Amino acid sequence: VVDPGRGAVFLLTDYGYDDEFAGLTRAVVLRQAPGAPLVDLTHGVPPFDVRAGAQFLSRSVVSLGPGVVVAVVDPGVGSDRRAVAVSVSVSGAGSPPERSAGPSPGRRPGPGPGYLVGPDNGLLGWATEALGGAAAAVALTAVGRSGAAAGRTFDGRDLFAPVAARLWSGATLNDVGMPIDPGSLVRLPDPVLTVSAGSVEAEVLWVDRFGNAQLAARPADGARAGFGGEGAVEIIVGGATTPGRLVSSFADLGEAEVGVMEDANGQLALVCNQRPAATVLGVRPGDVVIMSPAQTGHQ
Amino acid sequence: VVDPGRGAVFLLTDYGYDDEFAGLTRAVVLRQAPGAPLVDLTHGVPPFDVRAGAQFLSRSVVSLGPGVVVAVVDPGVGSDRRAVAVSVSVSGAGSPPERSAGPSPGRRPGPGPGYLVGPDNGLLGWATEALGGAAAAVALTAVGRSGAAAGRTFDGRDLFAPVAARLWSGATLNDVGMPIDPGSLVRLPDPVLTVSAGSVEAEVLWVDRFGNAQLAARPADGARAGFGGEGAVEIIVGGATTPGRLVSSFADLGEAEVGVMEDANGQLALVCNQRPAATVLGVRPGDVVIMSPAQTGHQ
Amino acid sequence: VVDPGRGAVFLLTDYGYDDEFAGLTRAVVLRQAPGAPLVDLTHGVPPFDVRAGAQFLSRSVVSLGPGVVVAVVDPGVGSDRRAVAVSVSVSGAGSPPERSAGPSPGRRPGPGPGYLVGPDNGLLGWATEALGGAAAAVALTAVGRSGAAAGRTFDGRDLFAPVAARLWSGATLNDVGMPIDPGSLVRLPDPVLTVSAGSVEAEVLWVDRFGNAQLAARPADGARAGFGGEGAVEIIVGGATTPGRLVSSFADLGEAEVGVMEDANGQLALVCNQRPAATVLGVRPGDVVIMSPAQTGHQ
Repeated sequence: VVDPGRGAVFLLTDYGYDDEFAGLTRAVVLRQAPGAPLVDLTHGVPPFDVRAGAQFLSRSVVSLGPGVVVAVVDPGVGSDRRAVAVSVSVSGAGSPPERSAGPSPGRRPGPGPGYLVGPDNGLLGWATEALGGAAAAVALTAVGRSGAAAGRTFDGRDLFAPVAARLWSGATLNDVGMPIDPGSLVRLPDPVLTVSAGSVEAEVLWVDRFGNAQLAARPADGARAGFGGEGAVEIIVGGATTPGRLVSSFADLGEAEVGVMEDANGQLALVCNQRPAATVLGVRPGDVVIMSPAQTGHQ
Repeated sequence: VVDPGRGAVFLLTDYGYDDEFAGLTRAVVLRQAPGAPLVDLTHGVPPFDVRAGAQFLSRSVVSLGPGVVVAVVDPGVGSDRRAVAVSVSVSGAGSPPERSAGPSPGRRPGPGPGYLVGPDNGLLGWATEALGGAAAAVALTAVGRSGAAAGRTFDGRDLFAPVAARLWSGATLNDVGMPIDPGSLVRLPDPVLTVSAGSVEAEVLWVDRFGNAQLAARPADGARAGFGGEGAVEIIVGGATTPGRLVSSFADLGEAEVGVMEDANGQLALVCNQRPAATVLGVRPGDVVIMSPAQTGHQ
Repeated sequence: VVDPGRGAVFLLTDYGYDDEFAGLTRAVVLRQAPGAPLVDLTHGVPPFDVRAGAQFLSRSVVSLGPGVVVAVVDPGVGSDRRAVAVSVSVSGAGSPPERSAGPSPGRRPGPGPGYLVGPDNGLLGWATEALGGAAAAVALTAVGRSGAAAGRTFDGRDLFAPVAARLWSGATLNDVGMPIDPGSLVRLPDPVLTVSAGSVEAEVLWVDRFGNAQLAARPADGARAGFGGEGAVEIIVGGATTPGRLVSSFADLGEAEVGVMEDANGQLALVCNQRPAATVLGVRPGDVVIMSPAQTGHQ
């Protein structure tokens, strides 16, 4: 009954954990796609924070197995914002499973999710790009909507979960919506990132539970700006300068030090050793940080 | 091994997410019913808040697929309060699955869970009613209890999860307890709701993560009180009056407006557009709100 | 495809629920071991709190079914701390499943998890002992590591989840690492517990969501100290003495009373009836409490 070739249904929402919203979304997927493995990526996206949700999704999506992503951070629910499903062009990932219910041991899982489902507000965009771009997209139609009676405030339950269940079960995009130009999908503005000889100016993308502050910059950006290896850097936040050091591990840092390190997503992050760097530096997501090679190291 | 016809085991508790209580309850179900799909409705019910748990469950239960509900919000654990399992009378939902382990493609999932398991403190009552009422009920006996040694403070692990696993696996109510009169099950008092020509007085049932305040009233109650369509209303909270407006979508509201809207459960809710209405109005669950058609609109 | 004989993969981390860390760890297990049932024990271990994680795990592990435990509370990630997998000696629990993908109805689930995977920082130790001790252990090698490119800060995704998936799928310890002496595994210091005639001095191990404070002492320790049955005790916290009473149920306590009770893990706990005892007494994990038979009861 469970076919590994179909992969899983991955859920990401801002519904939180305190009431039944997230659980009910799970239940509806499972009701309409019995046997579908459910993986909660997170339901802890800050309320209405499309940008944070898009980041979590884009950082995750290349490591997921095959399947269908349902993402719901949807301040425009009930408005005329489009609801969409997107297929991605990665070879093997986007091929919908056969309708056969039996296991197909000879079919190997593809490299990633084949479909992403959610509101057309930019939430899916970065993840879609990380998977190689949209091969096709549809605007979801009322055909996919369940529960016509009550108010339209819960599209996770009433629209996105049923559509994801149908795609997981073998439906095609055209079964669930009307084709739209993938180029018309809403895009979020890029994060702030300015690299010059001598400095990197980068947006803080996220602060994780341990206080690490993920930046929009990558190690190659630092190299272009003239710092690399394990050199000293200056970190400027809101006018205040803090000395830092390029490191490759939390354990390379002394108790009072701040480090700049490549994180698990290949991004630069501001880190400390068992202390929350974001609190030490006073940065939050959306802040902009400037990093430069320390002058003292060159004199 | 996984039989979709059996449905899932749905869990709702006030155990929270910070330690192993909820996870262990899941594990015990799975240990005793290998292959059972587990769906966490939520483990975030406020501690001891039977009323909130009962609401989450009653709002969810009609959208769940077939299976068994385990609900544990249980301030009386270890006392002489009864532990119960209830079967519901909905046609097709309450029929226990055959003991056959194989898939039965010809059998379609019924409309909802067939069993609810938990303490007899009112937690299950509204959900049972939403499913059509109790067909039968039993008081759980020590036969179902595991782990006789340690103190009796964790019936989720020691009693309710094992019983749910047995029911999911094909046991009948009489296998897990002694028959009791379904009419003897504990009932929670109804929420406050008084409707007259000119006003609706309604209890705030829940405030969700987005600050929407769900009320005990339904749109039909508003219609009886004389407001409907998209008219102006007055919202009285603790003596203070706030102007509001009947809307059908968050997006219908301006930045500073408060709306009254039918929510996804068919209840009226106090809402704002991307702001927490409950904070704006200063209401919490259990508070009583009075709503009237705005006089200015009729003069 | 799903073989109940293999059991589940149980996850415990300090990743929290607010971003994608925990969900991604789940997804990687499922990608590499399609069909594996996933059970989140918790992802709410306080950040870096190896001791709390070790307690949650040791309290849980005897109630889990067969399978593989992945535990990640790992302040030393990226340093030279070892990453390990341990097999336990419990008869039947440690036997790796056959490589056959088909179900084996004749094979019964063993009594507990056969493998534990995680950092070698003491996190796994108490749980390993609770399962009967380590039969063998390996230091994980780079063979098990995925995603060589990015920074080494996320061993849950890159090392522990893939190794757990391989063990669940039938790999042996020697397939995933190099043998090490189980006696060389890092051990956490024992909690404070001093028992004499007339007093029990015990560390507070954990405060649960309901405010119950679990102690390092057991009922037998109380009996040795001269209190038992339902007698009166004195509870000394930071110099202040509070009267208490030995009880066997929350419901035995009056509104203002503090009780000492055997909890669901067979430990003594400080409890109140629907109030948080830890707040009433002002205790936190790591504090030491002294309990003595009340003098007044003997005069």
